Amino acid sequence: MGRILCAGLGPGDPDLMSVRSDRAIRSASHVAYFRKKGRPGQARRIVEGMLASGVTEYAMEYPVTTELPFDSPEYISCIAAFYDDWAQRLTLLAQTQDVLVLCEGDPFFYGSFMHLYTRLQGRAVLEVIPGIPGMVGCWWSTGTPITWGDDVMTVLMGTLPEADLVRHMQSADALVIMKTGRNLPKVRRALEAAGRLDSAWLIERGTMPTQRVLALAQVDGSDCPYFATVLVHGHGRRPEVLE
Amino acid sequence: MGRILCAGLGPGDPDLMSVRSDRAIRSASHVAYFRKKGRPGQARRIVEGMLASGVTEYAMEYPVTTELPFDSPEYISCIAAFYDDWAQRLTLLAQTQDVLVLCEGDPFFYGSFMHLYTRLQGRAVLEVIPGIPGMVGCWWSTGTPITWGDDVMTVLMGTLPEADLVRHMQSADALVIMKTGRNLPKVRRALEAAGRLDSAWLIERGTMPTQRVLALAQVDGSDCPYFATVLVHGHGRRPEVLE
Ligand SMILES: C[S@@+](CC[C@H](N)C(=O)[O-])C[C@H]1O[C@@H](n2cnc3c(N)ncnc32)[C@H](O)[C@@H]1O
Ligand SMILES: C[S@@+](CC[C@H](N)C(=O)[O-])C[C@H]1O[C@@H](n2cnc3c(N)ncnc32)[C@H](O)[C@@H]1O
Repeated sequence: MGRILCAGLGPGDPDLMSVRSDRAIRSASHVAYFRKKGRPGQARRIVEGMLASGVTEYAMEYPVTTELPFDSPEYISCIAAFYDDWAQRLTLLAQTQDVLVLCEGDPFFYGSFMHLYTRLQGRAVLEVIPGIPGMVGCWWSTGTPITWGDDVMTVLMGTLPEADLVRHMQSADALVIMKTGRNLPKVRRALEAAGRLDSAWLIERGTMPTQRVLALAQVDGSDCPYFATVLVHGHGRRPEVLE
Repeated sequence: MGRILCAGLGPGDPDLMSVRSDRAIRSASHVAYFRKKGRPGQARRIVEGMLASGVTEYAMEYPVTTELPFDSPEYISCIAAFYDDWAQRLTLLAQTQDVLVLCEGDPFFYGSFMHLYTRLQGRAVLEVIPGIPGMVGCWWSTGTPITWGDDVMTVLMGTLPEADLVRHMQSADALVIMKTGRNLPKVRRALEAAGRLDSAWLIERGTMPTQRVLALAQVDGSDCPYFATVLVHGHGRRPEVLE
C-alpha cells in the first residue's frame, strides 16, 4: 500500500525547498498539483527540471476560480465536488503506489491541499512535508527583518471585508496581507485608513526570477498578480533594538 | 574579500532546512552561533554531523540572558556591547574568508541574528538564507492545518503584558504564542480570559527528537522549555471548508 505525500515547495526558488521535499520530488513517480485551467501552474513551474523521467503527472485543474463569488452556493458545491473527486482518485492511486502532491509554500498555511487532506483522513497513509511559507520569501526579498523583540504580527487575507482589515491593521506592529491580487485597491484603502500605507511594501512573486519589490504608496494601477503579498515591517518594542 | 552568511536552520529536524542552507553549512569553514553560557546551543545541535572536518567554530555566548530584566539599563548596555563586539570580530574575519552564522528557524523572524545584521550593514557583504520558522514545524507536529480561507492569524510573544495578550487573543482566529518558557502561566491565564484555552496546544521542541505535543489545558506545572510554542488553530470562515 502506498502513501499520499504532500511536499511544501517554499516561496518559489527551488533552492529554498527543504532537503526532504527536494528528495521526495526527485524520487517521485506519480506527481499531482493544482492549477488554473489552461495554465502551467505555479507549483509545477517550481519543480521544473527536478522530476524523474517517466513520471506520471496529474494536473488537478480548478473547475472555477474567480468566475463565481466565493460564497455562492454554486461555487461551493462545484469546488466541493472537485475536491471529492480528486480525493477519490488519489485514494485509488495510493492503493498501489506513493503519490506526491505539490503545494506552494507550506501546505498547512492557507494551502489548498488541506481540502484534500481532510477528505483523505483514514483513507490513505498521509504525510506532509512542511515548507517555507511564501510570506517568509517575501520579507527576505525586502532585505529587512519582519519582526523584532515583542512585535505583534498579524496575517490577513485581502479577501476580508475592508472594515476588518482596517481594525487589524491598526492593532498589530507587523502586517502580512496575502491574496492581494484583485483586492489590491481595497487593501490599499484599508492601509491608508489605518495610517500604515507609507510603510507598506508590495512583493510580487517573491524569490522567483520575476520578483518585484515595490513601495505600495508608489504603485499605480489597481491589480497585481495572484502571487503577491503586502508587508509592513515591525520595528521592535524592546529598547535594545531601537538604538 | 569574504561574506557573512546567515543560514536559517528551520524548526529543528535537519531534513527540514533548505537545500541552500544545507549546502552552505556542509561547505563552510568558519561557523558562528549564539548560545547560552555553558550550553551546547540549539543551533549547533541542529547541524551536528553536518560540519566539514577542520571547521573553525565561534560560540557567541550571551553575557546575560534571564538574570537581568529585559528593560533594565544594565541588560541593554551589556547585550549591546556583546553584539557590537561580535559584529567587529565577524567583520575582521570576513575580510579574508566567508563566515557562516547559524540561526534557528528563519533569521528575519524574531531572530537574534538581526542585531548583528543591522550592525554589519556596509561593513561586509551580507547574505541571508531563509528557513522554515519554528512555528511552522510546531503546527506540522499537531497534524492539523493552522489556517484556512479568510482566517486571521496573530503571532504574539509570551513576554507581552497580559492585557495585550488577552486583547489580541480575542480578535484573531489562529494564534501563535512564542517565547513561552517562564511566561507559560501568564499565557495560560490570558488564553483562559480570552476563552481560547480549551483549543490551545503546547508544542515543545517541535520536529526535534524530544518533541512533545500537549493540550495546554491538561498541562500541569508552570514552566516549559525555551523552545516551546503555544498554538490555537483557525477553522476557516469560508463555507466550503466548514462542510
Ligand atoms: C492560497 S495562499 C497559499 C499560501 C501558501 N501555502 C504559503 O505557505 O505561502 C496563496 C497566497 O500566498 C501568497 N504567496 C505565496 N507565495 C508567494 C510569493 N512567492 N510571493 C508573493 N506572494 C506569495 C500570495 O498572497 C497568494 O495569494
Ligand atoms: C528568539 S525566537 C526565534 C524564532 C526563530 N527565528 C524562528 O523563525 O522560529 C525563539 C522562540 O521561537 C520558538 N521556537 C522556535 N523553534 C521552535 C521549535 N522547534 N519548537 C517550539 N518552539 C520553537 C519558541 O517559542 C522560542 O521561544
